[in-house]
Amino acid sequence: MSKLLTDLIEALRCLPGVGGKSAQRMAFHLLERDRERGLRLAQVLDQAMRDIGNCSRCRNFSETPVCALCSSSSRDRQVLCVVESPTELAAIEQATGYRGQYFVLLGRLSPLDGLGPRELGLDLLADRLGEGEIEEMIIATNPTVEGEATAHYLAQLARAAEVRPTRLAHGVPLGGELEYVDRGTLAHAFGSRQALD
Amino acid sequence: MSKLLTDLIEALRCLPGVGGKSAQRMAFHLLERDRERGLRLAQVLDQAMRDIGNCSRCRNFSETPVCALCSSSSRDRQVLCVVESPTELAAIEQATGYRGQYFVLLGRLSPLDGLGPRELGLDLLADRLGEGEIEEMIIATNPTVEGEATAHYLAQLARAAEVRPTRLAHGVPLGGELEYVDRGTLAHAFGSRQALD
Repeated sequence: MSKLLTDLIEALRCLPGVGGKSAQRMAFHLLERDRERGLRLAQVLDQAMRDIGNCSRCRNFSETPVCALCSSSSRDRQVLCVVESPTELAAIEQATGYRGQYFVLLGRLSPLDGLGPRELGLDLLADRLGEGEIEEMIIATNPTVEGEATAHYLAQLARAAEVRPTRLAHGVPLGGELEYVDRGTLAHAFGSRQALD
Repeated sequence: MSKLLTDLIEALRCLPGVGGKSAQRMAFHLLERDRERGLRLAQVLDQAMRDIGNCSRCRNFSETPVCALCSSSSRDRQVLCVVESPTELAAIEQATGYRGQYFVLLGRLSPLDGLGPRELGLDLLADRLGEGEIEEMIIATNPTVEGEATAHYLAQLARAAEVRPTRLAHGVPLGGELEYVDRGTLAHAFGSRQALD
């Protein structure tokens, strides 16, 4: 196989979930049928890797110093939702009708991995809470051990700035069957049962 | 979401088997964790889309006028294996110990799609058979209706040039169970049963 083709197959393996066989299939597909879109991908990918940085206000991916969402005048400035990564921000934007602001930690508290309050930009978050505009901080870290520890820390930060901290509800997922819900979730949902009006 | 990020996700969908969700996952993965390899992919992809053409002898992908395989002195020049596409050439190279030459049709005879002898480079193939060096032509087109029709045409071409045409054996795949082999294959394997020495 030609050197350049081997290089292309190897390079495609940087994509998550793509092994040798899929990479080969992708390379052949682009070469045989879709060179134009392949070139376009190369160009956009290069530009994105170089130009996409982080918004100086919310730390989400942005190619401008302040992202479109932070500079939008139509978003509610009294509510701030804190997420671990841009992926979760995208999921919340797509699933909910939330119209407030965001703050992206780009990680979770994990001292063993060298991720402390400074790495998560918590000084920036504290400054933002100190501005006095925010009334509620929705903590949407992942429901993992580290996510919960981070949530605990964030709640303290909010209270110190006299901002009301809230957390996404835990419970039984919609559309599931109780039989297959894990024990921890079921116990939590049972304990936090809610009155029907 | 930022314009450039949306563009990147859209561009990644040119890859076979990649939908919106996977494309988003790939984009976030590269941005968060692997910008260097992302840049490398962009560069190799751009170069490959521009520089990879087809070998003037075998029509396989090559960035040089004649590919490494065709110009190699260690490959047997008496045997020529004809395949439909570079993917199949790669599969044969990886699975078998074949040391002869190749010819890539870049398609199969399919008049309704405008693929005739000229599009498959059969004039080039005829010239090559006419050189008198080749003794056996292995026809390795796919065992589909169009592949079989192409094989039939190729066999005539070989006989006209006094070259012996051969075809990959059909039969029961190794490691399968007879119960699950399709009827056509089983009937063929039964009819072509071979004597045990």
